[in-house]
Amino acid sequence: MKLWEKGIPTDKKTDLFTVGNDRELDLVLAEYDVIGSMAHAKMLGKTGLLTAQETNDLVAALQDILKIINDGEFTIEDSFEDVHSKVEYLLIQKLGDTGKKIHVARSRNDQVLTDVHLYLKAEIQTIKNQVKELFDLLISLSEQYQNILLPGYTHFQVAMPSSFGMWFSAYAETLIDDVTMLNAALTVADQNPLGSAAGYGSSFPIDRTFTTQEMGFATLKYNSVAAQMSRGKVEKTTSFAMASVAGTLSKLSMDICLYLSQNFNFISLPQHLTTGSSIMPHKKNPDIFELIRGKCNKIQALPYELTLITNNLPSGYHREFQLLKEGLFPALQTLKSCLEMAHYSIKEIKVNENILDDKKYDYLFTVDALNELVTAGVPFRDAYKIVGEQVDNGTFTSPKATKHTHEGSINNLCLDEIVAKMERAL
Amino acid sequence: MKLWEKGIPTDKKTDLFTVGNDRELDLVLAEYDVIGSMAHAKMLGKTGLLTAQETNDLVAALQDILKIINDGEFTIEDSFEDVHSKVEYLLIQKLGDTGKKIHVARSRNDQVLTDVHLYLKAEIQTIKNQVKELFDLLISLSEQYQNILLPGYTHFQVAMPSSFGMWFSAYAETLIDDVTMLNAALTVADQNPLGSAAGYGSSFPIDRTFTTQEMGFATLKYNSVAAQMSRGKVEKTTSFAMASVAGTLSKLSMDICLYLSQNFNFISLPQHLTTGSSIMPHKKNPDIFELIRGKCNKIQALPYELTLITNNLPSGYHREFQLLKEGLFPALQTLKSCLEMAHYSIKEIKVNENILDDKKYDYLFTVDALNELVTAGVPFRDAYKIVGEQVDNGTFTSPKATKHTHEGSINNLCLDEIVAKMERAL
Amino acid sequence: MKLWEKGIPTDKKTDLFTVGNDRELDLVLAEYDVIGSMAHAKMLGKTGLLTAQETNDLVAALQDILKIINDGEFTIEDSFEDVHSKVEYLLIQKLGDTGKKIHVARSRNDQVLTDVHLYLKAEIQTIKNQVKELFDLLISLSEQYQNILLPGYTHFQVAMPSSFGMWFSAYAETLIDDVTMLNAALTVADQNPLGSAAGYGSSFPIDRTFTTQEMGFATLKYNSVAAQMSRGKVEKTTSFAMASVAGTLSKLSMDICLYLSQNFNFISLPQHLTTGSSIMPHKKNPDIFELIRGKCNKIQALPYELTLITNNLPSGYHREFQLLKEGLFPALQTLKSCLEMAHYSIKEIKVNENILDDKKYDYLFTVDALNELVTAGVPFRDAYKIVGEQVDNGTFTSPKATKHTHEGSINNLCLDEIVAKMERAL
Amino acid sequence: MKLWEKGIPTDKKTDLFTVGNDRELDLVLAEYDVIGSMAHAKMLGKTGLLTAQETNDLVAALQDILKIINDGEFTIEDSFEDVHSKVEYLLIQKLGDTGKKIHVARSRNDQVLTDVHLYLKAEIQTIKNQVKELFDLLISLSEQYQNILLPGYTHFQVAMPSSFGMWFSAYAETLIDDVTMLNAALTVADQNPLGSAAGYGSSFPIDRTFTTQEMGFATLKYNSVAAQMSRGKVEKTTSFAMASVAGTLSKLSMDICLYLSQNFNFISLPQHLTTGSSIMPHKKNPDIFELIRGKCNKIQALPYELTLITNNLPSGYHREFQLLKEGLFPALQTLKSCLEMAHYSIKEIKVNENILDDKKYDYLFTVDALNELVTAGVPFRDAYKIVGEQVDNGTFTSPKATKHTHEGSINNLCLDEIVAKMERAL
Repeated sequence: MKLWEKGIPTDKKTDLFTVGNDRELDLVLAEYDVIGSMAHAKMLGKTGLLTAQETNDLVAALQDILKIINDGEFTIEDSFEDVHSKVEYLLIQKLGDTGKKIHVARSRNDQVLTDVHLYLKAEIQTIKNQVKELFDLLISLSEQYQNILLPGYTHFQVAMPSSFGMWFSAYAETLIDDVTMLNAALTVADQNPLGSAAGYGSSFPIDRTFTTQEMGFATLKYNSVAAQMSRGKVEKTTSFAMASVAGTLSKLSMDICLYLSQNFNFISLPQHLTTGSSIMPHKKNPDIFELIRGKCNKIQALPYELTLITNNLPSGYHREFQLLKEGLFPALQTLKSCLEMAHYSIKEIKVNENILDDKKYDYLFTVDALNELVTAGVPFRDAYKIVGEQVDNGTFTSPKATKHTHEGSINNLCLDEIVAKMERAL
Repeated sequence: MKLWEKGIPTDKKTDLFTVGNDRELDLVLAEYDVIGSMAHAKMLGKTGLLTAQETNDLVAALQDILKIINDGEFTIEDSFEDVHSKVEYLLIQKLGDTGKKIHVARSRNDQVLTDVHLYLKAEIQTIKNQVKELFDLLISLSEQYQNILLPGYTHFQVAMPSSFGMWFSAYAETLIDDVTMLNAALTVADQNPLGSAAGYGSSFPIDRTFTTQEMGFATLKYNSVAAQMSRGKVEKTTSFAMASVAGTLSKLSMDICLYLSQNFNFISLPQHLTTGSSIMPHKKNPDIFELIRGKCNKIQALPYELTLITNNLPSGYHREFQLLKEGLFPALQTLKSCLEMAHYSIKEIKVNENILDDKKYDYLFTVDALNELVTAGVPFRDAYKIVGEQVDNGTFTSPKATKHTHEGSINNLCLDEIVAKMERAL
Repeated sequence: MKLWEKGIPTDKKTDLFTVGNDRELDLVLAEYDVIGSMAHAKMLGKTGLLTAQETNDLVAALQDILKIINDGEFTIEDSFEDVHSKVEYLLIQKLGDTGKKIHVARSRNDQVLTDVHLYLKAEIQTIKNQVKELFDLLISLSEQYQNILLPGYTHFQVAMPSSFGMWFSAYAETLIDDVTMLNAALTVADQNPLGSAAGYGSSFPIDRTFTTQEMGFATLKYNSVAAQMSRGKVEKTTSFAMASVAGTLSKLSMDICLYLSQNFNFISLPQHLTTGSSIMPHKKNPDIFELIRGKCNKIQALPYELTLITNNLPSGYHREFQLLKEGLFPALQTLKSCLEMAHYSIKEIKVNENILDDKKYDYLFTVDALNELVTAGVPFRDAYKIVGEQVDNGTFTSPKATKHTHEGSINNLCLDEIVAKMERAL
Repeated sequence: MKLWEKGIPTDKKTDLFTVGNDRELDLVLAEYDVIGSMAHAKMLGKTGLLTAQETNDLVAALQDILKIINDGEFTIEDSFEDVHSKVEYLLIQKLGDTGKKIHVARSRNDQVLTDVHLYLKAEIQTIKNQVKELFDLLISLSEQYQNILLPGYTHFQVAMPSSFGMWFSAYAETLIDDVTMLNAALTVADQNPLGSAAGYGSSFPIDRTFTTQEMGFATLKYNSVAAQMSRGKVEKTTSFAMASVAGTLSKLSMDICLYLSQNFNFISLPQHLTTGSSIMPHKKNPDIFELIRGKCNKIQALPYELTLITNNLPSGYHREFQLLKEGLFPALQTLKSCLEMAHYSIKEIKVNENILDDKKYDYLFTVDALNELVTAGVPFRDAYKIVGEQVDNGTFTSPKATKHTHEGSINNLCLDEIVAKMERAL
């Protein structure tokens, strides 16, 4: 955050205003900027726009820079506008005029677009992996606690029997839908925009199929104007998928926060995952899950931010596309951290085993009792009368157990089928 | 819209408040409600919960209702709360006690969920078909006008040469990304929730795999809690895909509105697609495209509405899920109408052929001229100096033609590759 | 909702597409359209653009139309595009050429703007009145139940003692902030745009100060371009204020739904305000409050819809401004109905009196006990040790009563001060 | 932005996750934290909860800290969780046990709320001042350029004559509505929440009226639960007002970007306010205005982020309220910077004087010509025929000047009245 203070001279302010926090945000792009430049250099060599020597020199120098990045020693000083300027500076410093040639047949927009596509591909893949890890955890908890019952609610009212087996695997299966969305975002990101120049292509005889293969893109975004229009669109698509994952995590966290309340008391967390109070011994505040909920709710606002920035702008580059990074890049880090903290904390949840002993849950089983009579041949109206009278005169005795058989019911969780569905989705 | 007036008695108000405009919205669900009920009846017969005779009677009666629906003669009177009550009423009217049995082992939530999944599947498929029709039109216009040049803009400033071929096919290729999103939404919708009852399954020995096949779903949403949680999620996912399509249409409409302005004058529309003024002969207001733009922008707000309604609610049914239909169902109709009107109107666009004759576009080609010198072996700095001087002393002569060769450039549109990519995406 | 079906001929579709549901939405504007026309006619008479006779005839005819509207007999048939066409038709039908003269020195945009400003003024005032009624109810419930304690929560964890007196009046005081926002929206709406014509004024010598006074506007929106720019802005401002009220109602409804859960059981509702289940005797679903919550959450999405429709459009009229009504007008009805249902239902809430008897609330008073020791002179560390040990060895006895004295605490609710603050705000 | 990397140990990650970037964000609160603590200390002295000596020592030490803050030398090291811990640490370091007593009868939530209210009051006032400065500039430009005509557009189509006088003052008058919204936000922020403790008040005999006066708040948020509920609400209200200002700036920036396009060419900017191209001499990219547009569009997404974080949470503190700062605080800086850059850049706009010489604007005056005939007594139909024929046979000669007389028209801008309205609004 840059404070906007009266004392700052105008030129400095203009710089702060136009450059913003690009330098900080661009650090995550450094790796992809170099990868993109290597592909571009090789292509320039292949098509004769560079000599073999120039190509080799550039690729070697880029490899050196990549090593600096991987060692965590890459920096973007205030004297550079962005990551691209810094990389180019390093090349020119090392190779002189040859360094300058990396920019032949390429524009800044082109390069940013390519970096963003490569970066989003990698981030979406990481998120998919984390979702899979969380899925695996939830499936194993579902298996472990499949016999422990839980009240099921509708309208916040005690309704029907459920179980921890149902609850954990419900979120697991829901994550499969999120993977479907992540895959769509990945497909949209996995198209090479490099070579579209400022958005209208160029007169140089470049080979975009070559760079596509070099960088490992699945296909090209062929049309140069379409490539430029992916600015904003690829970010929005990614944010839709992120919002999907975040929506699932937020709902799960809300359940957990409720279940930890003394008024539910379904689960507990070890001390180190809650914050207490120096004076109130009963307080175990679930800060981590409250923050997962809040951070994931914030992520769900991201698509609207990206939409508002880009909406109603005609085709062609507009400078504010630069601002798309500001919301998106930190949100990716936040989502990954939420997935990691969710995994770390959920695996420590302790489940209370005798929840249904409380008499306020007795009526959970009236529907099961009724169904049992119906299945045994008692007409529905008679069965209804029998159970109703038992409830009225206090003789209804809750079975406190279920005999559900259908696919996806308490006693038939279909975990294998759910796991198989996830495998197909990945 | 129901007006909320002082004169209405309270009971009527409560009814208006809780039922809302469900009856009207539910009309589109009638077909799917019957299809779901047929599958359910057959399953009840298969598992012995109904006799063969009961099953046959129910299926026959449901087929009669389906015919009424298909004939456009189905109605939901004010005496019925929703489509489900009306269908059940018709069954009971015809079959007496057998009619009542359709509701065995099924809950209202269950049924709504199933209807919505079937409906969304059908609607998303229709939208995909419309997107493909628009894609085909844009590709053919791109081919037809591939040699007509257009100024390309960055920052709203005249920048580089573009062409109608580039412009039309840019939007075509962008639609492929929208199809990717529609496919994800389709996958999420294409899972059978029937049998999850009130969200926790039931104790009846139902066969959900059977109903899945009967209704043509690709798979089950196995976990009953997950099935219930798809309420809200399937709507949001669909809305993300709709927002994706809408974003593309909105941007295209903005381009068209600008290009129709006297200040651009790149294209024109026949009289019957514009509104004029009785006194200003130069006015050709592009109302249709302004409304496509506005309606599509409104659709882009839909995910936020659906998110706000469902967010921070713990698992389990909540009554306001009913409100999800209010925004989503009309928005689906709106998106389809926008796609239809876009197709109908874009095919009548007339392209102005001599746009670049205007001298304000002369400098479009300075980069091409410079690149040409560089490619011919002139060092960049010398080339830059030559072109710069020509510009300064007014001797720069614009070639007014391009010789771009790379994939996705003006003279190499790669339309076949784009069409093939769409085919793979569909 | 207009279904977009294949069978409809194109011209009809274009009409449906461009006219939309204007006719239905415009009904609420009819009254204001006539009021605006009366002011305009009188002004034309005053400035000599109409004769005295023409003016009198027009005003008399408009008064007849106003009577039809107030009698609820005004309709807009499909043969008319909107309310303005219908009113003009009635005038011409009655007065011939004189009827046509109502449109001298006025444009359609002008007229719509004026109608919308007058309508929003009236609606905001109605909402303010309803907010005040709800405020009064909450204050009286706060007074009535001021001595009944309630657990106060933080992090969904039992924390400190609260009371129904605190709870009810907390929402009352919060509504004052909503009135502040409604006042701001009212100020923005209370500026006369009439006379700005198509957004650039006109060459007729009209008297806008006169129409301002005639229609009871507080001031003019002087600049004609600014008047046109209020399209979108006045709607957004109103929606911000509506979102403010809706946010308060939504939160209150969430509290009520939770408090009605068997797991809290703080309050109850009479049977006719809940929906039950034929089989589960414990179910009292709070549908009304769930729907208030959901409808108010939907209203909170409205500003985003309006922003997306208008954003990034340059100054000057654009056709999609017509779409602003679609979201806003029904939302106003919805907000009024939510306020009415909230008032109607909250006044029937029964409060449970012995909530704190449950031992899970014993520790609510540890902080009070500690503070008491501190106030009595015991050093904080010693006091902390004493209470801590009592908690640990189970000898802590909860006072189950509070002696809070400061402004806005349980035993000093400051209801008079809050009422006075509301009076100042109104 | 904190990167979420695999190598970081879990405890560090938990800390990063829960503390976030609070330290950085909290820097702007330091001043207000100290001011609030001074008022609290004096109140504790007045009510006898502290001795006079303790009070004097605390106030003196706090004044020292305030000096450090004002000198720009205050820091929050990683060993402190937030600004409150750091201030308390400094007090204890200096005063020992007396330092600890600042926390008597106050909770962290309390303190954060108070800091935020004080901070928002100051920021909103600063924004109001900046809006007034921009207003003054626009009024003076309107006066300066009142005679220079400009085409007015509707539907992006050339429509009616406008002027730079109209255009500049249209945005000035629109800013008055933004001030109205800022005032509402200020009123909501200007209520003292201090003393509400954790949201349920406390048993200490504190004097909240005293602290209200000490800190200069207009009134108390009396009810302690209401005070806690202002968390989220005061931020949202502020964001609505910010969105209002941002909407105006965004629209103005869009106009400027369009008017700078070669296709309009209505205005120009000095070189140092545009970015050019090394090769395209015609490029003058209006980066500053594109960024104002984009940043202001991003700000318009803020209310939705804040709403999503807080929505559907019942009353009482939830940990994620901490996240409200993340979006809001930087957005305040951004809005101030946009206002400053707008003022700085708009005052350098050069206006093109002979815009209407271009023949595409000839028909702007057909309506004026028609009105003139009508005013001279020619019946409308005849006048229409005359002008229509002139247009058709090319004999229509544009007057290229206007004689508009009404309030808010080209030749009667009512700048004094607009200035007076702003004065009343401030």
